[in-house]
Amino acid sequence: MKKNNKIKNNKKITAELHGNISIEPKKKISVSQPKDGGVRLAAKQGKLKVIPLGGLHEIGKNITAFEYGNEIIIVDCGVAFPEDDMLGVDLVIPDFTYLVKNKDKIKGIVFTHGHEDHIGSVPYFLKQVNVPLYGTKLTIGLIENKLKEHNILTTTDRHCVDAGDTVKLGSNFKVEFIRTNHSIADSCALAIYTPAGTVVHSGDFKVDYTPIHGEMIDLQRFAEIGRSGVMLFMCESTNVELKGYTMSEKTIGIVFEEIFEESEDQRIMIATFSSNIDRIQQIINSAVKHKRKVAVMGRSMTNVVNTACELGYLKVPEGVMIDINEMRSYIDKELVLIMTGSQGETMSALSRIANGEHKTVEVKPTDKIIISASPIPGNEKSVYRVINDLLKRGADVIYDGLRDIHVSGHARQEEIKLLHALLKPKYFVPVHGEYKHLITHKNLAVELGMNKKNIFVMGIGDVLEINKDSARINGYVHAGQVLVDGLGVGDVGNIVLRDRRHLAQDGLMIVVVSMEKESGAVLSGPDIISRGFVYVRESEELIKEARDVVKDALEQCGERDASEWSYVKTLIKDTLKDYLWRKTKRSPMILPIIMEIN
Amino acid sequence: MKKNNKIKNNKKITAELHGNISIEPKKKISVSQPKDGGVRLAAKQGKLKVIPLGGLHEIGKNITAFEYGNEIIIVDCGVAFPEDDMLGVDLVIPDFTYLVKNKDKIKGIVFTHGHEDHIGSVPYFLKQVNVPLYGTKLTIGLIENKLKEHNILTTTDRHCVDAGDTVKLGSNFKVEFIRTNHSIADSCALAIYTPAGTVVHSGDFKVDYTPIHGEMIDLQRFAEIGRSGVMLFMCESTNVELKGYTMSEKTIGIVFEEIFEESEDQRIMIATFSSNIDRIQQIINSAVKHKRKVAVMGRSMTNVVNTACELGYLKVPEGVMIDINEMRSYIDKELVLIMTGSQGETMSALSRIANGEHKTVEVKPTDKIIISASPIPGNEKSVYRVINDLLKRGADVIYDGLRDIHVSGHARQEEIKLLHALLKPKYFVPVHGEYKHLITHKNLAVELGMNKKNIFVMGIGDVLEINKDSARINGYVHAGQVLVDGLGVGDVGNIVLRDRRHLAQDGLMIVVVSMEKESGAVLSGPDIISRGFVYVRESEELIKEARDVVKDALEQCGERDASEWSYVKTLIKDTLKDYLWRKTKRSPMILPIIMEIN
Repeated sequence: MKKNNKIKNNKKITAELHGNISIEPKKKISVSQPKDGGVRLAAKQGKLKVIPLGGLHEIGKNITAFEYGNEIIIVDCGVAFPEDDMLGVDLVIPDFTYLVKNKDKIKGIVFTHGHEDHIGSVPYFLKQVNVPLYGTKLTIGLIENKLKEHNILTTTDRHCVDAGDTVKLGSNFKVEFIRTNHSIADSCALAIYTPAGTVVHSGDFKVDYTPIHGEMIDLQRFAEIGRSGVMLFMCESTNVELKGYTMSEKTIGIVFEEIFEESEDQRIMIATFSSNIDRIQQIINSAVKHKRKVAVMGRSMTNVVNTACELGYLKVPEGVMIDINEMRSYIDKELVLIMTGSQGETMSALSRIANGEHKTVEVKPTDKIIISASPIPGNEKSVYRVINDLLKRGADVIYDGLRDIHVSGHARQEEIKLLHALLKPKYFVPVHGEYKHLITHKNLAVELGMNKKNIFVMGIGDVLEINKDSARINGYVHAGQVLVDGLGVGDVGNIVLRDRRHLAQDGLMIVVVSMEKESGAVLSGPDIISRGFVYVRESEELIKEARDVVKDALEQCGERDASEWSYVKTLIKDTLKDYLWRKTKRSPMILPIIMEIN
Repeated sequence: MKKNNKIKNNKKITAELHGNISIEPKKKISVSQPKDGGVRLAAKQGKLKVIPLGGLHEIGKNITAFEYGNEIIIVDCGVAFPEDDMLGVDLVIPDFTYLVKNKDKIKGIVFTHGHEDHIGSVPYFLKQVNVPLYGTKLTIGLIENKLKEHNILTTTDRHCVDAGDTVKLGSNFKVEFIRTNHSIADSCALAIYTPAGTVVHSGDFKVDYTPIHGEMIDLQRFAEIGRSGVMLFMCESTNVELKGYTMSEKTIGIVFEEIFEESEDQRIMIATFSSNIDRIQQIINSAVKHKRKVAVMGRSMTNVVNTACELGYLKVPEGVMIDINEMRSYIDKELVLIMTGSQGETMSALSRIANGEHKTVEVKPTDKIIISASPIPGNEKSVYRVINDLLKRGADVIYDGLRDIHVSGHARQEEIKLLHALLKPKYFVPVHGEYKHLITHKNLAVELGMNKKNIFVMGIGDVLEINKDSARINGYVHAGQVLVDGLGVGDVGNIVLRDRRHLAQDGLMIVVVSMEKESGAVLSGPDIISRGFVYVRESEELIKEARDVVKDALEQCGERDASEWSYVKTLIKDTLKDYLWRKTKRSPMILPIIMEIN
């Protein structure tokens, strides 16, 4: 590992725009920069620890810690959405134990882009550890919306950068933001320069030669960094199973234009991801061309559109946007409604319109509705339900598969190969994917000529110790998931979920008996209450018999005082369980309750 | 409607093979047959009623009644699988109310093929109405397995037919079985000849010019029947959204062969649909060629393979099949395991192997595992979980998308167009699909030149009254779904499911108080028990406070005797609900219980 001081000689402009950090503006890192990015070596033989705390073996809650010496930086801090069996859970966030324990080392969080699975956990983290945040303007703007909701905006240190900028974090890390393309504007990959070597993290990306907002992915910079030597490449794997290239976002605009032309007299409604500002821009472009007004519906859509307009990511000519309450002043052919609900989310604008519960919009047979998204795995049935409901109201519905009205924001195989080819890293860690994606990505890298031994398929909590000469998984830190339910963070776990699943499966039966404390004499009951088990009215006989079964059991066991009540409870439970299984082949949760009377 | 007596002059051979029905053997219906199939007209101006009781606006529980005069025949009698929000429900069957009410009219059930969504409800129906069953050999064989399970085999009248045969049901119906291709052998479309005209029901089909078992779909017969005049075509719509043709089943065999060759030293496991006997035949063919033994795993796979072998649909050379307990006598390269679990079903062989819970098979890194199926919408996440688990055990896993190891059994647009073109029906009813499929199919028929007015997008319970001159939806009969949970048929409904959903979402909190009947004095409690709400150990404070809140409320309302206990219960419920929402933003089910002590 050769130390190279050239960077010190660069005319380095430290922009003190944002508090006490230094941001080097665009293009100020020389191509001939050293392999370690010019950072002073804290320890010549030091190793970098790479510790993913989320985003591996799952799609969601992306977060990775990079630790060198006494310093840690974090890349992204996202949420995941609950699995089907996490009943009642609202959000899943990473387990921050390791970071909280090492909070004094943390120099900041660097964000690749503003999607929920990369920024959604920030408020939960900041409530435990207050560190500065770094990201491009839109990313920070979207994070600020969250900080406001959680009332921690004013106490949080935020720093906006542009693609091309480099930020210094602590004495060991410099992070350069490299422009990429994705389904949200202002997305970046990161080059992380450390004394141990350079890491490139792809963020989420695609290669879009004709992007809507901003420029195409900075392939030249990837090549430059590649030329100067990349120790480790961490690359997203979402679409690695798919052959070929992902189409340009621009292709969707062309189809929108066709549809607008075909639908001259119709009211047009379009549901898409609220964060896909480029998609929204293209809808607005068509609306302007066809002299239509645009109304935006759904809380997250309104939030994102407002933020994007304020920050200049969305260009809307004066007078085009109207409030949904102004819609009645316009006839159908003068309107486009943009809304949430492309994933069939129950409470979204589109779902409520589809089931006739929206307070301002009613579907008409003359409406044209476009669902500009494809269902995320697991959402298929909800999306289809919405489509069916809209069609039943007579509307024309265009959904994925019928027309080319959606492209992914993630690179397919050929684009992924391109980044590998430009960077030519020594080591490789596939990230952002289920295990099957990571394995497919590993196989792809091997096909490109990488040595299998230099590829690490990691799990969360694994610690990769790495420098330019060697790399190995060395140890494990605490990592996992924390469930958020309502205001509760972490108070719902396996036992609670197991109970919810049991209750969901077969319902519950409660048996209450009042017993005299000393004698164990039954003073009242047994009474039986059931919920979610059977229609009580039609199963009176069953409930009555169940009560008799318990009564018999109590009589047979004789009077037992308070010291033996756990025995009595078990007896009630077992007797009833057997009886109900025999009669119904079901196992409701049985809760025996003894009320103790003095 | 012209009466034509030619058929009476045919040399009609009535085969009295199967009880008292007459089956006309293959090819005995003349091409020049009359448009009404030669059935004596019961009423010259009569109309046929077509009443779908399942299978529309859904994929599953296919069943249609055809009623003419005093006679009804039924086509198919399937189950559906529960939706995600039908918690704890095992199966969904059609509501048979209309048929039970008209049971004396029913002449029999005719089956198109042996898939669950076409035969699965038979035992439930037969327990209410005992009627004869008609189907091809494999279909009846699979039905017989069900009848055995339900102990009604001996009391049920079954009739096997061959493709090409015609059965007479009552005095108004003749049903001809027309050979088709599908993902289960022995599938048929039906030509239903009635005094009102001829109906063709496609069943489930694809056009496979190179099928594995038996011959290709009898396109000539479709053409003949089309030529002689089809009043109504009812055609399946499963894949109507997909352009082009579905590939031949044979293409899969070629890929299997490649994989077997590449995997010379590996143990091969293949999961697929148990009913796809042609797929299983191709696996066996490759196994035989590569001198491997075949073991079959999973209850439904074993059942179907046994039935198919007995009936000659599966050709397995002597000595190829082994019991799973014999596997240890063979080395990896001598084995192929065929199993259930291609949809990620929790209790299936593949799932248990994937999570290490199978009692005989343990995955090794040298195993090659093929999942020869694509996930049915809604099953994606379960299937991916299984794939991930298998990969984590180091196995090579080949799944849909990586190689061409699955084709659908359902026709795509070009095949569907072909049947329309051969039949040229006067009226058309799209069947077997969600609403979006039916609408897409309607649009496709319009593109083919059909008059929109002659196409009926029906819902279940709708009554289509039709003859050659006119058709209209005229009335509605009771139709719907009945939920099967354990032994209970219909004892779980909306209220029970609503309770299960509530319990699943936020759990439950029980408040028990013992009160003196006359005075209303609190003798014991309030006690609080919660399940599925929060970790009790970590939320002791919350539970204690909740108890205090209830206690305060009880004290403030003063002593109330038994006559006012519903008031007391409501008070407890409301007080606690407010408190918990404020503290946790959750709404568990609250059950106040008052134990009355004399």
